[in-house]
Amino acid sequence: MLQIREYHASDWPNVWPILRETFAAGDTYTFSPRSTEEEIRKAWTEVPVRTFVACDPDGQLLGTYFIKANQPGLGSHVCNCGYVVPARARGRGIASQMCEHSQSEARTLGFLAMQFNFLVSTNTGAIRLWTKLGFSIVGRLPGAFNHRKLGYVDALVMFKQLVP
Amino acid sequence: MLQIREYHASDWPNVWPILRETFAAGDTYTFSPRSTEEEIRKAWTEVPVRTFVACDPDGQLLGTYFIKANQPGLGSHVCNCGYVVPARARGRGIASQMCEHSQSEARTLGFLAMQFNFLVSTNTGAIRLWTKLGFSIVGRLPGAFNHRKLGYVDALVMFKQLVP
Repeated sequence: MLQIREYHASDWPNVWPILRETFAAGDTYTFSPRSTEEEIRKAWTEVPVRTFVACDPDGQLLGTYFIKANQPGLGSHVCNCGYVVPARARGRGIASQMCEHSQSEARTLGFLAMQFNFLVSTNTGAIRLWTKLGFSIVGRLPGAFNHRKLGYVDALVMFKQLVP
Repeated sequence: MLQIREYHASDWPNVWPILRETFAAGDTYTFSPRSTEEEIRKAWTEVPVRTFVACDPDGQLLGTYFIKANQPGLGSHVCNCGYVVPARARGRGIASQMCEHSQSEARTLGFLAMQFNFLVSTNTGAIRLWTKLGFSIVGRLPGAFNHRKLGYVDALVMFKQLVP
């Protein structure tokens, strides 16, 4: 049973290692592997409207995500989310549950749609998952991601309307 | 003869009215028409790597643009630009000259490609111009722009490689 709740500042010591591990791999997020802890803390927990953590019944952190407006003003009805699950917890449906949770939260916050700006094209597991959850590929950015192992690969834009 | 040169802080009193006029129209940029002068000054002249102004021989301001990395870290080889020409100076090829200038500056700064994230689909003049200048439509975001007069309309993503 996964518990998904709002992030508190006291969660940071548990959140940071899983973000650091994920960004250091250099295969899914644009954050530079050389980003400082403070830069990442701000981007993940201060810039967004809301940040959440997913925990198992013992309180162990199994994932985190943020939600924010994707554009200011006249584009602010579309939100953007970022999800991270540590390697040790993958394959258990945690990203899927966080994504469902984020769509519900987004509707509560008044967002009409959700956009992923930059899904690395080689991250086929995530693309398959978001497609299953109702997202469509609406764009392809040629060579826009500098994959740490593969070099320049395409990034995809995915989109889902949240209200009929 | 258009002169395009780097922005200086002393240009702001001339830049602000043309940005305010453009954003107040609510038909091309996501900046809220309720944004403060200080928010816009920061977004246009501090966040970007470079900001430029285009002037006529008498020094009158006919346009301005910025250039910045579109993503951090592993996406920072792709830049993003925003261009504004005041209503009184449109139809004279100024946007076109600024775009050519920005591509040259982008190459000098080491960028490999240029991306426009959010071109309002009803802004057909701009889409035609960017297409003529070598940009391709690589994405379409359904209803992502809240047009002040037309309501929700699509936004396009356009992209151009800057090096072979």
